[in-house]
Amino acid sequence: MHLDTVKDYLKTLQNRITGAIAQLDGGSFISDAWKKPPGEALQGNGITQILENGEVFERAGCGFSHVTGPKLPPSATHDRPELSGAPFEAMGVSLVFHPRNPYAPTVHMNVRMLSAKTADGQTVAWFGGGMDLTPYYGFEEDAVHFHSSCRDALNPFGEHLYPRFKVWCDDYFCLKHRNEQRGIGGIFFDDFSELGSEQSFAMVQSVGDTLLKAYLPIVEKRMNTPYGERERAHQLYRRGRYVEFNLVWDRGTHFGLQSGGRTESILLSMPPLVSWSYQHQAEAGTPEHDLMQRFIVRREWL
Amino acid sequence: MHLDTVKDYLKTLQNRITGAIAQLDGGSFISDAWKKPPGEALQGNGITQILENGEVFERAGCGFSHVTGPKLPPSATHDRPELSGAPFEAMGVSLVFHPRNPYAPTVHMNVRMLSAKTADGQTVAWFGGGMDLTPYYGFEEDAVHFHSSCRDALNPFGEHLYPRFKVWCDDYFCLKHRNEQRGIGGIFFDDFSELGSEQSFAMVQSVGDTLLKAYLPIVEKRMNTPYGERERAHQLYRRGRYVEFNLVWDRGTHFGLQSGGRTESILLSMPPLVSWSYQHQAEAGTPEHDLMQRFIVRREWL
Repeated sequence: MHLDTVKDYLKTLQNRITGAIAQLDGGSFISDAWKKPPGEALQGNGITQILENGEVFERAGCGFSHVTGPKLPPSATHDRPELSGAPFEAMGVSLVFHPRNPYAPTVHMNVRMLSAKTADGQTVAWFGGGMDLTPYYGFEEDAVHFHSSCRDALNPFGEHLYPRFKVWCDDYFCLKHRNEQRGIGGIFFDDFSELGSEQSFAMVQSVGDTLLKAYLPIVEKRMNTPYGERERAHQLYRRGRYVEFNLVWDRGTHFGLQSGGRTESILLSMPPLVSWSYQHQAEAGTPEHDLMQRFIVRREWL
Repeated sequence: MHLDTVKDYLKTLQNRITGAIAQLDGGSFISDAWKKPPGEALQGNGITQILENGEVFERAGCGFSHVTGPKLPPSATHDRPELSGAPFEAMGVSLVFHPRNPYAPTVHMNVRMLSAKTADGQTVAWFGGGMDLTPYYGFEEDAVHFHSSCRDALNPFGEHLYPRFKVWCDDYFCLKHRNEQRGIGGIFFDDFSELGSEQSFAMVQSVGDTLLKAYLPIVEKRMNTPYGERERAHQLYRRGRYVEFNLVWDRGTHFGLQSGGRTESILLSMPPLVSWSYQHQAEAGTPEHDLMQRFIVRREWL
């Protein structure tokens, strides 16, 4: 597996996805190529694409980045002592789409690769990523569609993968300070190489290729549902949880901001408009209450 | 110094401040007494007061809390080995007020005490706190008034204190991921006992007693300034920085959320409505640009 192959796949994936989103929206993404200033230990470049204030999407960000570093951090080589201190490359695509209509859910996807060279010149690569859905109003059929798309992406590589990555996702996207899930979950994996480089990369491609299939039909179904101030207020309040998770718990975001990553690219995930209010509780019997009781919980969807 | 004296001072301070804010606003605070469930290592109780959707204040939160623990954490006893593992008490008042009018600044204040008993039964106490101002539009006279109020509060205890605590505040309230200050600063101190318990507590009282003098005249002067969508959009965008600082960098918030503090009380500081947008830049020559150039920077105000 050549690293250029991975890079080509990721850049094409980014354009395929943002192309489809732009088409649905009718608006267009701005595309911002960036490069880390020379002289820093971490070198790299990326392309940040973002659509703001669209008809369908209030904020949709999708970033590609490619970073090289002189030395793997100890956290990455704990289980790979032979790579301790080796130079590395990391590349990935990360996206968060926030629709305007409160009946349409927010989606997040990430696919990434970390690779390093052993002392005898062999390239070792491992992968991470996944996708998860955060609805503001719950629809069983949407949750089932999203989860079955995730399962279908993974099944060709082993039927044990979906159940494992589904639980991993529930574990990861949990707001521990509220004992609350971020959304209805999906799949999450990290540090993955057990199928070998080629097949692991094929699995990651299958995940990346599934995003539009998993998400677009749901947005298309919900984006024109009539709504009023009540639904909008609920959506803005729930978006606060997205901010709390990403800034407090998400390792990529928190570590990225604290270690000198590119702030505006990292914070692509932030919702466009968010509210906080004290001890907000949905009344029993309302759809907002139903969301919390039956959807934003750990649950088997398939 | 008896701990009940500190507690009485803090509870009275909370009511004095929220009373004055409610009077200015015309609305009223809800007051929420809470208690940690028995069985947890950290025991405690508090009173959370909050005014939401007021005429003048869109969200104004002020909390008192009193926590006891069986064992000081290592971080607290690094410089006090004689207190290693000692039982402790912590109490404080913390507030953040977010006005509705973009010309009126957000204020934050905190006063707190940590105390522990040495092996021979002596009570040792140390203090922390301060106040800082975050304007959305810059006014020199407001910044000078706020900083001179801070200086006047400290000067009776030593003229070296204001310059020292002013720099400490600039150091603390810095968004390192943006190389940006949170606001125009003020004063910040931590781990303070060098004047002895009695005088250190007197200094903290002087700081607490100064909040209304430092802040109210500024809000009163700005709260009726006419504004439109442009000012509102700028305010919502800048509030995003408040969220970023508090969730990513503020030790109290971040540690509190990660260690099982009372979420809704910790997140009193969150603004009521916030926006994010990509690479937002104010145009040169505008008041929004002037804010960033001349106010949200490290600068001597007196």
